[in-house]
This record gives sequence, C-alpha cells and structure tokens, in this order.
Amino acid sequence: MTQDRPRVSLTGIKPTGDPHLGNYIGAIRPALDLTATYESIYFIADYHALTSIRDRAKFAAYTRSVAATWITLGLDPERTVFYRQSDVPEIFELTWILSCVTGKGLMNRAHAYKAARDRNAESGIADLDAGVNMGLFNYPILMAVDILVMGADVVPVGQDQSQHLEIAADIAGSFNHLYGDVFSLKIPEAVLPSGVNARTMPGTDGRKMSKSYGNTIPLFAPPSQLRKLVRGIRSDSTPVEAPKDPDASAAFQIYENFADPEAVKDMRVRLEQGGTGWGELKNALFETLDAWLTPLRARYDELVAPGSELDAILAAGADKARDRARPVLAGARRAIGVG
Amino acid sequence: MTQDRPRVSLTGIKPTGDPHLGNYIGAIRPALDLTATYESIYFIADYHALTSIRDRAKFAAYTRSVAATWITLGLDPERTVFYRQSDVPEIFELTWILSCVTGKGLMNRAHAYKAARDRNAESGIADLDAGVNMGLFNYPILMAVDILVMGADVVPVGQDQSQHLEIAADIAGSFNHLYGDVFSLKIPEAVLPSGVNARTMPGTDGRKMSKSYGNTIPLFAPPSQLRKLVRGIRSDSTPVEAPKDPDASAAFQIYENFADPEAVKDMRVRLEQGGTGWGELKNALFETLDAWLTPLRARYDELVAPGSELDAILAAGADKARDRARPVLAGARRAIGVG
Repeated sequence: MTQDRPRVSLTGIKPTGDPHLGNYIGAIRPALDLTATYESIYFIADYHALTSIRDRAKFAAYTRSVAATWITLGLDPERTVFYRQSDVPEIFELTWILSCVTGKGLMNRAHAYKAARDRNAESGIADLDAGVNMGLFNYPILMAVDILVMGADVVPVGQDQSQHLEIAADIAGSFNHLYGDVFSLKIPEAVLPSGVNARTMPGTDGRKMSKSYGNTIPLFAPPSQLRKLVRGIRSDSTPVEAPKDPDASAAFQIYENFADPEAVKDMRVRLEQGGTGWGELKNALFETLDAWLTPLRARYDELVAPGSELDAILAAGADKARDRARPVLAGARRAIGVG
Repeated sequence: MTQDRPRVSLTGIKPTGDPHLGNYIGAIRPALDLTATYESIYFIADYHALTSIRDRAKFAAYTRSVAATWITLGLDPERTVFYRQSDVPEIFELTWILSCVTGKGLMNRAHAYKAARDRNAESGIADLDAGVNMGLFNYPILMAVDILVMGADVVPVGQDQSQHLEIAADIAGSFNHLYGDVFSLKIPEAVLPSGVNARTMPGTDGRKMSKSYGNTIPLFAPPSQLRKLVRGIRSDSTPVEAPKDPDASAAFQIYENFADPEAVKDMRVRLEQGGTGWGELKNALFETLDAWLTPLRARYDELVAPGSELDAILAAGADKARDRARPVLAGARRAIGVG
C-alpha cells in the first residue's frame, strides 16, 4: 500500500510534573525537531497521568504548565495538532471497542504492568496485583487508541516503550481480523533521539535528571532559583589550577547541551588544561541558560496564567483532533454494527 | 441523607438474540412493572454485548429487534428514559476515569471473569485467560458507570448479578475516598421478580427457555411458526383419557404465564381429571399466545423496519440519557482536576 499522505508523527506528553531541562533535551527538543519531517501531532496525555496522580490541583496545574511549556519552546499550534487527550471523547469510546478485541493475555505481558508486579514481588508483597489499578492495566489499550485514532506513522518514544507500539499493531490486527480492513496494521515506528541529544542529561547530583530523584532544574525557574540550582550542581574538589575531566562533570554535560559549539569546545579545552574552576563553568552555564530563558520565562508566565490565550489554543487543538478522531471512530462503529 | 427525588430503577438489556417468551416472562414484564413504582430507565447494553458478539449484521439486528420488542410490549418512551448505551459517549470517558480508581484485584474476583477461567480449567486449558478479552475483564467497570451515571437506586437483576452492584458501590467509594463526595455510595438494590413470574419458564424441551439450549419460542414468530413450535413442545405419552400432572408439563407452565387465571384453573382441573389431551392444551396455548401476539406482531414489524419511528424514539432517548450523564461526567472531571 503506497502512502499518498504526509507521514504523521505523534508525541504524547504525560503531565506528571513541572517540565525541567532534562525533559527539554530528552523529549521536547527532539519532538519539536520532527515538525521538519512529519505532520506533527502532540497531545497532553492527562488521562494517562490519572493512573498515578490523585491530586486535583497538581493534575490541573501540571497539564497547564506542560501545555504552556511546549508552546513557549516553539510548538506552533497552527502548523501542528496540539490537544489535551481529555478533550477528545472519541478516544474513550474507541478504547472500549478495542478492549473487546484485546486478549487479556496481551495485557498480562505488558511491561508497565509486569514492572508493577515485580516491584511487589521484590517488596515481599504476596498479592502481586496490590496497588495496581485498572487504568494502569488498560494503559496499552488507551495508548493504542491514541496512535490509531490519529493514524500515527512514527512515535518518538524510548526503546523501553516500543512494546506499546507492537501492542497497538496487535490490537489493530485483532480488530481487522474480526471486522475487516479498518486500521493500519503497520507497527508505528519508534523514533529515537540521536547525537548529543541522546545522552542522558544529568541532574544536580550527577544522576539522570529526573523528578523522582529530586535533582531537576525547572525550565522556567526565576533567575535567583536558577543560579542557586546551578551553583549546587555536584562537583568534585579538584583545585582551580588542576586539569579536569569535563566528561565527568554534570555541569559540563548540561552546558554541552545548551551553549553553542564554539563555547563548549573552548570550555572543554580550558577545563582540561587547568586554571578554570568549576565555579567559572557554573557561572558560564548559568549565564547561558539565563540568556536563553529570559524571554521564554515571560512568555511562559503569560501563557500559564488562568484565562490566557492557552485556552483558545487548546480549544482549537481539540477541534482539530476531534475532526481527525471522529471518522476513525465512525469507521469502527460501522464495522462492528453500531454506527 | 434523605432523598427528595423519585427512586430510579435501571434496566440493562443485552442484545444477544431475538427476544423470546422466556425473556418476556423473566425480564421484560417484571422490568416494565417497575414503571409503577420508580422513575424507570432502560438501555440497550450494546457495548456489553460487544464482548461476545462479533457479527456486525447480527449485532445491528439484535439491537434493533430488542428495542422494537420493548416498545411493542409497552415501554412508554415518553414516561421513561430509553436509549442505546452506544449513543451516550459520556459513559466511556467515565469508564476510563473510574478504571483509574479501580483496583485490579477487584476485577480478578468478578464472577464473570472467574467463570471464564473455571471453564478453561475444566477444559484442561493451561492458560486460564485464554479467550478472555479485556471487554469481559473490564465489564464490571462499565456496569458501574451505567449505574452511577444514571443515579440508579434499584436494578432488576438476578441474584447471580448482585456482585456487580457491590462492585459499583466499591468503585464509587474508591473515587469518593480520593476526590470527595461525588457519587452515591449506596449499593443499588437488586430487585428480583416474585410470584408466578419468578418461576423459570420452560422451553420446548422442558429445560429453561434459553437461546443457548435452542428451545425458545420467539416472541413475534408468524402464526404458522408459532403453531409448529407449540405443537413441538415435549410432552409424555399419557393417553388422552388418563389423569395428568399439569405441573410436570412444559406446555402447561407456559400456558400458566399467559392465559388468564380462570382459564388456567379450568385447564388444570381438566388435565388432572383426565379426558383432556396434551394436544388440546397445546391448541389452547397456541390460541392464547396468538390472540395476544397478533396486534403486537404488526406493531413490532412496523418498528423493526429500517427507517421506522424507532430511530426517532432512540434519538430522543439518547438526548434524555445524555442530559442525565453530562452533569455526572462533568462532576467527575471537576473532581479529578480535568474539567
């Protein structure tokens, strides 16, 4: 089957915390790069986050802050489809339909569920399903619908998530087997970031920057907080004059991702030669980040405020998303004999 | 909490076959009787049937025939809420929301799922989840939503289904525990038919009338087919002149449910005395059924035809159902921080 439409990339963004520098390098920038090559669709996967977030204020705040972040960082809502999952009711009806053709065995083998059971087993909990909710267990079906309802060809996910793409194709296959050729059976391609971007970006303690380690640098922290966090990045006690290994330095690895290549090369040489201290590196890092973030902070604050234009952006995105989802759901309904 | 609104009864009708006399006596008539006491809501549970019906033509035909049957038999769509589950998208979004607060353990213990595993075990199938789809596994969550979204106080179900009502209350409790007082925690009451109606109505072979036994008498069969089916009801070879036990006769048990009490009493005496043969009983049964069904058949045929007023009835019912469901979903969305 030749394809005469542009290839579609789909990025799901789970609003489980305030976005930080690690999210930008590991997920946001690579996903925004895809707009050059694909018809790009982005959605806030708020109903995925519901399997783990139980605080209504945080849930609402994270959704808004994630949406404001992506727009601030360059997502163009005119040239892309950008919506909240919870604004597209078609997704949930299709989730029920597809659950009826999804074998329970397929879900039993899904990684996220198995990981939850493994954690229980390691903790000596006899009931391996303890703490597992049905949202988590059904998660791969919802993700399959996210993909199928938008006709995604590529999905920028980590290798650990590629199983979900195979599950989506499996579920589509089960449906088509029973009801005819409704969904594409092609396994959506997992697109992985490459180059410098593919490196794990360290947090302030040198481990991977991650909310769960409490070592993040929030993207839109005010300058005073940013300065304090950058100064607090763990470094060893090598004296200023001694030669240093830049690649063993968390601050340098962050710097590498944000400074321009000439500045990075220069800093590398100076650290390796000796005579440049970690403090100087951190000052350069702060100045680089702060220069980049100053205009973005203002834009972010504007967007994240209640009643901002973000509401209209999300409403328009929901319309576009529903325009895509409606015929897919209608096709599935016709196929099963409901429509 | 005192209740200042009329109590609500909710009847789900799974369209898994053409309605027969056993459905009428066991389910339809008792459910229609509830309109005297309750604000009555009826829905065609087509998305429940999807867990087992894979034939689009049958699926569509059963849904239509079930809807036409209930209207024909006296359901008044003006005085009740009557809709197809698949016409109320709010149900499926709420199903996702509630799945996120439903422990997987609760579903592991649900009767329908356990019965499927038991059948596999009895058949020597090693994978106890073989043939179990996620619609079946998620079924109690969808049923909980059916109940909660309509604020049902009573549900006419068999004793074997009362577990589902407890599960609905459990799920409502989990949600409220996390998000505040959104759903009623009262376990909906299972209303069971009583009196003659409660008897299991036999089919043509003397076993319970059931599609799975192939022993049914369809409600709106044409007279010639009805006559043939009634004549074929299993009876013993007691000669005409011998006294007979009416209660051991399937034909008599069916007759009891449809003839007026005087005629039933008279027939009982005549059978017990002897001199009345099974053929005479069957003739009386046929005449009784046919007299009752003649006007109904015409009405049914009119309603079941494509493009009949049934479409408008179901569309109006969907509007009423969505008017009830919308604020419930909106309340849940606000509570979790999405709305």
